[in-house]
Amino acid sequence: MKKLILLMYCPDKKGIIASVTNFFHQRSGNIVYIDQYVDRIQNAFFMRIEVEAELNDTEFDNIKKSFHEELGIPFEMNCDFYLANVLPKMAVFVSKYDHCLYDILAQQSSRKLGCEIPFIISNHKDLEPIAKQFNIPFYHIPVSKDTKESAEQKQLELLQKHGVNFIVLARYMQILSSKIIDEFPSKIINIHHSFLPAFPGAKPYHSAFQRGVKIIGATSHYVTEELDAGPIIEQDTIRVSHGHDVEDFILKGQDLERIVLLRALKLHCERKIMTYNNKTIVFN
Amino acid sequence: MKKLILLMYCPDKKGIIASVTNFFHQRSGNIVYIDQYVDRIQNAFFMRIEVEAELNDTEFDNIKKSFHEELGIPFEMNCDFYLANVLPKMAVFVSKYDHCLYDILAQQSSRKLGCEIPFIISNHKDLEPIAKQFNIPFYHIPVSKDTKESAEQKQLELLQKHGVNFIVLARYMQILSSKIIDEFPSKIINIHHSFLPAFPGAKPYHSAFQRGVKIIGATSHYVTEELDAGPIIEQDTIRVSHGHDVEDFILKGQDLERIVLLRALKLHCERKIMTYNNKTIVFN
Amino acid sequence: MKKLILLMYCPDKKGIIASVTNFFHQRSGNIVYIDQYVDRIQNAFFMRIEVEAELNDTEFDNIKKSFHEELGIPFEMNCDFYLANVLPKMAVFVSKYDHCLYDILAQQSSRKLGCEIPFIISNHKDLEPIAKQFNIPFYHIPVSKDTKESAEQKQLELLQKHGVNFIVLARYMQILSSKIIDEFPSKIINIHHSFLPAFPGAKPYHSAFQRGVKIIGATSHYVTEELDAGPIIEQDTIRVSHGHDVEDFILKGQDLERIVLLRALKLHCERKIMTYNNKTIVFN
Amino acid sequence: MKKLILLMYCPDKKGIIASVTNFFHQRSGNIVYIDQYVDRIQNAFFMRIEVEAELNDTEFDNIKKSFHEELGIPFEMNCDFYLANVLPKMAVFVSKYDHCLYDILAQQSSRKLGCEIPFIISNHKDLEPIAKQFNIPFYHIPVSKDTKESAEQKQLELLQKHGVNFIVLARYMQILSSKIIDEFPSKIINIHHSFLPAFPGAKPYHSAFQRGVKIIGATSHYVTEELDAGPIIEQDTIRVSHGHDVEDFILKGQDLERIVLLRALKLHCERKIMTYNNKTIVFN
Repeated sequence: MKKLILLMYCPDKKGIIASVTNFFHQRSGNIVYIDQYVDRIQNAFFMRIEVEAELNDTEFDNIKKSFHEELGIPFEMNCDFYLANVLPKMAVFVSKYDHCLYDILAQQSSRKLGCEIPFIISNHKDLEPIAKQFNIPFYHIPVSKDTKESAEQKQLELLQKHGVNFIVLARYMQILSSKIIDEFPSKIINIHHSFLPAFPGAKPYHSAFQRGVKIIGATSHYVTEELDAGPIIEQDTIRVSHGHDVEDFILKGQDLERIVLLRALKLHCERKIMTYNNKTIVFN
Repeated sequence: MKKLILLMYCPDKKGIIASVTNFFHQRSGNIVYIDQYVDRIQNAFFMRIEVEAELNDTEFDNIKKSFHEELGIPFEMNCDFYLANVLPKMAVFVSKYDHCLYDILAQQSSRKLGCEIPFIISNHKDLEPIAKQFNIPFYHIPVSKDTKESAEQKQLELLQKHGVNFIVLARYMQILSSKIIDEFPSKIINIHHSFLPAFPGAKPYHSAFQRGVKIIGATSHYVTEELDAGPIIEQDTIRVSHGHDVEDFILKGQDLERIVLLRALKLHCERKIMTYNNKTIVFN
Repeated sequence: MKKLILLMYCPDKKGIIASVTNFFHQRSGNIVYIDQYVDRIQNAFFMRIEVEAELNDTEFDNIKKSFHEELGIPFEMNCDFYLANVLPKMAVFVSKYDHCLYDILAQQSSRKLGCEIPFIISNHKDLEPIAKQFNIPFYHIPVSKDTKESAEQKQLELLQKHGVNFIVLARYMQILSSKIIDEFPSKIINIHHSFLPAFPGAKPYHSAFQRGVKIIGATSHYVTEELDAGPIIEQDTIRVSHGHDVEDFILKGQDLERIVLLRALKLHCERKIMTYNNKTIVFN
Repeated sequence: MKKLILLMYCPDKKGIIASVTNFFHQRSGNIVYIDQYVDRIQNAFFMRIEVEAELNDTEFDNIKKSFHEELGIPFEMNCDFYLANVLPKMAVFVSKYDHCLYDILAQQSSRKLGCEIPFIISNHKDLEPIAKQFNIPFYHIPVSKDTKESAEQKQLELLQKHGVNFIVLARYMQILSSKIIDEFPSKIINIHHSFLPAFPGAKPYHSAFQRGVKIIGATSHYVTEELDAGPIIEQDTIRVSHGHDVEDFILKGQDLERIVLLRALKLHCERKIMTYNNKTIVFN
């Protein structure tokens, strides 16, 4: 018995839910989860469905094909099919901060993350000992203004060679160019250390301190061309006071960052996120 | 165009979702919302569905009848049908605390609550001026050990005479007997001033202070025979510190109480809550 | 026995705490609360102290004078003295939204706010019935581009005539000019319906929805010349999801607004806030 | 220049603050932090003070002695003096769950915890690889009904041999006897996976699920003879819904547990906690 996951969107019309549920019902699939969302402004319909069925690889391909012909074309659907037991491959990009990396690797060691991690890439050597501690291959690819293009070429080759499905920027302090972003649309997850859209860009904790806010936050989002402006996946906040200095903001914030990033990674690994119109729909 | 709301549960089986969505699809109803939940331990299936359709009263009755015959009986369903435009009638019971009452009446004045309030009942006269301020009939029905039975008789008569659908105990400091509870199963909403199941019964803020907790809470729940043990609808918490005394706990807690109670009332008015096995399923 | 409150700041030096505590100790005052904060970047020292003492009005004046001579001048202190039993007078400015006004008046009726409310001013008549409900004088002063100057003149006259100490803008939809702001420095409290500095200005819920945030917030702050850029007193946030539309954001946000505004008002009434360098120090 | 930390409590009297601040002022100490709390019910005064001063070890001893004679005896004070640069030694007790251990060791590796960790003790071998990963000595001391006494004897010997100052039970699934508890009063920190006092004892997530709560929590507290009833240091909560099963509660809860435990450990390491009357005073 396997579990099939379908993420789908299309223009909103009458009868979509009935048609989709019928499709699987007629093939002896048991719908164990269904959730849907209608964006009335865009007139768009979104659905996530989990179906338990006896399936081998051929049958999985056949179902996708039949679905496309019977429903996909007439309803103009945009579909992604997954098998729950096939884990996505995630590449980890880091620089010098270790708190997110430790959390990712610890959760991965305990098999709570739901992905495979073929390697870690960093523009610095500082975190190589942690990669060794957890037995994950570590590639040191320095990045400077002059070497950025060749560095990204090396990164791309590693990503392709290992069949990486998505990338996490776990406090990676370099801005990716479109060369990589275009290859991984809605597939690069960043953690930004502020409650976006407040304080985008560099040194958000310093800006938050300067402004005298009473809450700080962290935001995980998909990376797009525009800096810190991609679809937001998850955010959280924590209270601060006048008594906290920038260093306190950073320490408190790091706890937020790692929790918020992990939540986003798990949602992505479980195929619970759709993106549309620079926003996310999170079926949770 | 009217909106029909269906809350339904039954033993879990294959094909329920497909059958229900087909039923409405075939009658030209447009499903604008569907949410479902499966309790795998109890093998129970729960669903909330909103359908837009052209309906007069007779057609609404016919749909209920057809649904019952075609699906209700074969699937052993337990169903509640509502029309979104028919507002439920809520009776308000209070004693001396005014914070929840003010919030309820202010929200009602601004038409944010989604119900009608035919009257307020209290065992004290203290809050009568507030009822007058907001132009709601106020019945003073004192309750003592000796008069409890006749007092509840008077309450029941008022409830029945006005066709009340559900009751809110907005810090009503009397324990209702089964005489009233049995008439309103899953229809009496209480606000308890602790994060249940911690600190049930009297003086929870004092107990919380005594125990030295660092968070306090409030809980809205449906009233059952056992005190403060009915299905929980909504809870929230707020941080406290050693520097807060019992009076501070009470003041901070009152903000929680009114917010948590209002959320529960709105959920109930919008028919978003099902109860099962002394728990709530909240489709939100 | 009276309670004296002192808010003080000065350049940071050795011996301030010892000198201040000695001063009151020698006059038989009992220090029941002391809190201090040092801004190491600005080298500034801030203190809030509560002293219980037998005091008539003359003695209160004498203490202020002695304190100024013995400590204020040598330490270059900036001091504000208050008697806890003298409640500040707060003017309420509103437009059309009623949720903050209801909360303020309900809390005031229950004597939880710690101030007097001599009157309400509005540029619209919509909320006059609520003022009447609570028996507070209501002045309708319309504001248009052409009448703004004379309108503010009328407002100022009312403020001065009633000896108002501070102003709350309880969703007042007009921008005050420097004519009023300059008369009430750090004495005008606004509630803005976003987690500032995100989404300043008009229609923040619409902007938040557009951006696809997963948390929304509210911010109370002192009004300065620059719009929504004054010292932040209090903020709070609440989770939202893709399933919420702008209307949901507004309803959820309004609960935040009234809670956050009330917290700020209570802190101000209890003389727990100092402002410095466009930030607040909140001794809580 | 060293930083001295004093935690002190005594019966409340006039003049304590003035006397203490004078004492340090006269010895050229610069008070950089002062916080105090008065428990009016118990008539007890609590204070935490940080003083910067040029101090060698002899002078530190002299100051303690003078303070005791001049103030400690007359005011009946109970005092603890620390030097901020002397880190406490923490022993870690674990069983099979790794999430708290990973967090503790990762934070320790990044020097964010403010203590030394001489060793880890466990009644199981499961987590030994993690200890190795982080290069911390690991002692496997199995505990059964019959061996409990000798096991605790071995534990005590290790604790004493390494001069351990306090113990963290990072999901250690054994109940300590008074043999160890009595040696470490207010020096053993446990993490319990519920918002105490709700759901003490075994399997709190199962009980929370059974009760149908809408929030779950975690509590760190000092261990006393009575199970899960010691002074609470820190708590936090997170929302759950009917859609979460026990496994979800456990996963969400584990994020709370590790965050709440770390906060408690940092507070303890920074000497910010006093215990009194089975409660904590947390100067933060």
